[in-house]
Amino acid sequence: MSSVLVVGSVAFDSIKTPAGQVKRCLGGSATYFSLAASFFADVRIVAVVGSDFTAEDESILIKRGVDTSGIQRIEGKTFFWSGEYGENMNEAKTLQTDLNVFETFNPQIPPAFIDSDFLFLANIDPVLQSNVRRQMKNAQMVAGDTMNFWITGKRKELEETLKAIDFLLINDGEARMLGGSSSLPRAAQKILGMGPKALVIKHGEYGATAFFKEAGMHPFRAPALPMEEVVDPTGAGDCFAGGFMGYIASQANLGRDVLKKALFYGGVMGSFAVEQFGTERFRNLKKSDIEARFQLFRELSHLD
Amino acid sequence: MSSVLVVGSVAFDSIKTPAGQVKRCLGGSATYFSLAASFFADVRIVAVVGSDFTAEDESILIKRGVDTSGIQRIEGKTFFWSGEYGENMNEAKTLQTDLNVFETFNPQIPPAFIDSDFLFLANIDPVLQSNVRRQMKNAQMVAGDTMNFWITGKRKELEETLKAIDFLLINDGEARMLGGSSSLPRAAQKILGMGPKALVIKHGEYGATAFFKEAGMHPFRAPALPMEEVVDPTGAGDCFAGGFMGYIASQANLGRDVLKKALFYGGVMGSFAVEQFGTERFRNLKKSDIEARFQLFRELSHLD
Repeated sequence: MSSVLVVGSVAFDSIKTPAGQVKRCLGGSATYFSLAASFFADVRIVAVVGSDFTAEDESILIKRGVDTSGIQRIEGKTFFWSGEYGENMNEAKTLQTDLNVFETFNPQIPPAFIDSDFLFLANIDPVLQSNVRRQMKNAQMVAGDTMNFWITGKRKELEETLKAIDFLLINDGEARMLGGSSSLPRAAQKILGMGPKALVIKHGEYGATAFFKEAGMHPFRAPALPMEEVVDPTGAGDCFAGGFMGYIASQANLGRDVLKKALFYGGVMGSFAVEQFGTERFRNLKKSDIEARFQLFRELSHLD
Repeated sequence: MSSVLVVGSVAFDSIKTPAGQVKRCLGGSATYFSLAASFFADVRIVAVVGSDFTAEDESILIKRGVDTSGIQRIEGKTFFWSGEYGENMNEAKTLQTDLNVFETFNPQIPPAFIDSDFLFLANIDPVLQSNVRRQMKNAQMVAGDTMNFWITGKRKELEETLKAIDFLLINDGEARMLGGSSSLPRAAQKILGMGPKALVIKHGEYGATAFFKEAGMHPFRAPALPMEEVVDPTGAGDCFAGGFMGYIASQANLGRDVLKKALFYGGVMGSFAVEQFGTERFRNLKKSDIEARFQLFRELSHLD
């Protein structure tokens, strides 16, 4: 089985949505990515936590077979985020962000992880993303995420990161900002000119579109499931990335067919993520649930 | 060939977009619908125009085989609209609306049109929509459109209209307003409870989703084409409806398979509409262009 290494945040989140609230549940981009990818590939995680990160917290990852030996433990508190979603579930209002031990995070890849086939650079400082990228010279494929904060605040550093990654996965707003155009296809062309071979733009409830640098390679669109109740959208984008990259890692070759299915699996894992608070939905999720939902996505979007 | 009757507006539009501008080009919901549907079925139009509507204007419809004998001519000026689109092409800023002869429009269906198999009630006063519906007792299938203005201003009358139509085609904002929920699937359930057998929600650049009243009938999503340059979005929604209904009218039975393809053809016709100002793109459009784009939509969204 191929191995996927993810470098990003592990956090505690307090979340309020119209469906209810939770206090200090396990979250963070690397956590969500790991859980989603773990259904497809061997996952290794590099992150930092404080002394408040318990064996019970860790067990959420371990039960899914995630290799947690790359989680650094530092004296102090784990990254804490608190946010609230209104009726429009597309954007959270941040109530509190305590970086805590994450503030001085400087990820070092353990020797045992250097051979990882796939690398996902979750949404962290692009300077750190580039540092990690340089440590992983032999990765077959590297994907990454970013956010508005880095696009405006560390643009030059982010452009350096983009030169050395194969896939960038961002949302509509980030793509428009990074590509400098309100037209997503135009923004995509601009972004592809910065380095990545492919760009996946996540449209939330409308699905996702992949744009490719290779001349003549048409875009591909995958749907999202129309969901009557979204309980908690936190982590959906990271779960999309986890399903996307996990599926790619599970396949022998990376052709257009695999990429298309990977976009579907990304949507599938995102759709599970939002059904319950935090990482709860992954506790009892089975591979057969994933396959059934993949079929639902196909039925939702295919003519025959 | 089945016949499709459309009742709605014929107008002159002055439009400004980032791609340029046009003055007093032929527009209106019934015009756009007719042109798009004309590639699939016999189209008959009922509308009202003023004495400024010339033979040249009419020829745009006649060249596409549209039966214009139901266009009433009244002393006065034709409905005039002027609007401007910014970088975000999803919404126009209305600069001027002169209803003119449209203000007293009271559509009477000519005897020769009463046998039409399909009826499309374009976006007009729901009271008029209901009047037309009553005149067309034998229509096999009736679809309609509406807008925020009627949802807020004539809600009761609109609910009467909804009781007697099979398909409602509206956009995201209209669906949320009419269904009273920010969740589109929830709004859809509410709207389906008001009467229609199916609801098509148009998501602009993200495609469209059909929701069905029949228990156990899953929604279906069709993509929209990622377009680098949208020249003029005016009429795209009406062209979507024209392609959708025209395709349905061209088929012997209305099963799920036909409906799914109809949603694709809706997107296809919408994608042509935005490529040039006004109705310009339909002047030289060929059936083979439509089939080629249908294949592009399939390639864009299908796994195999």
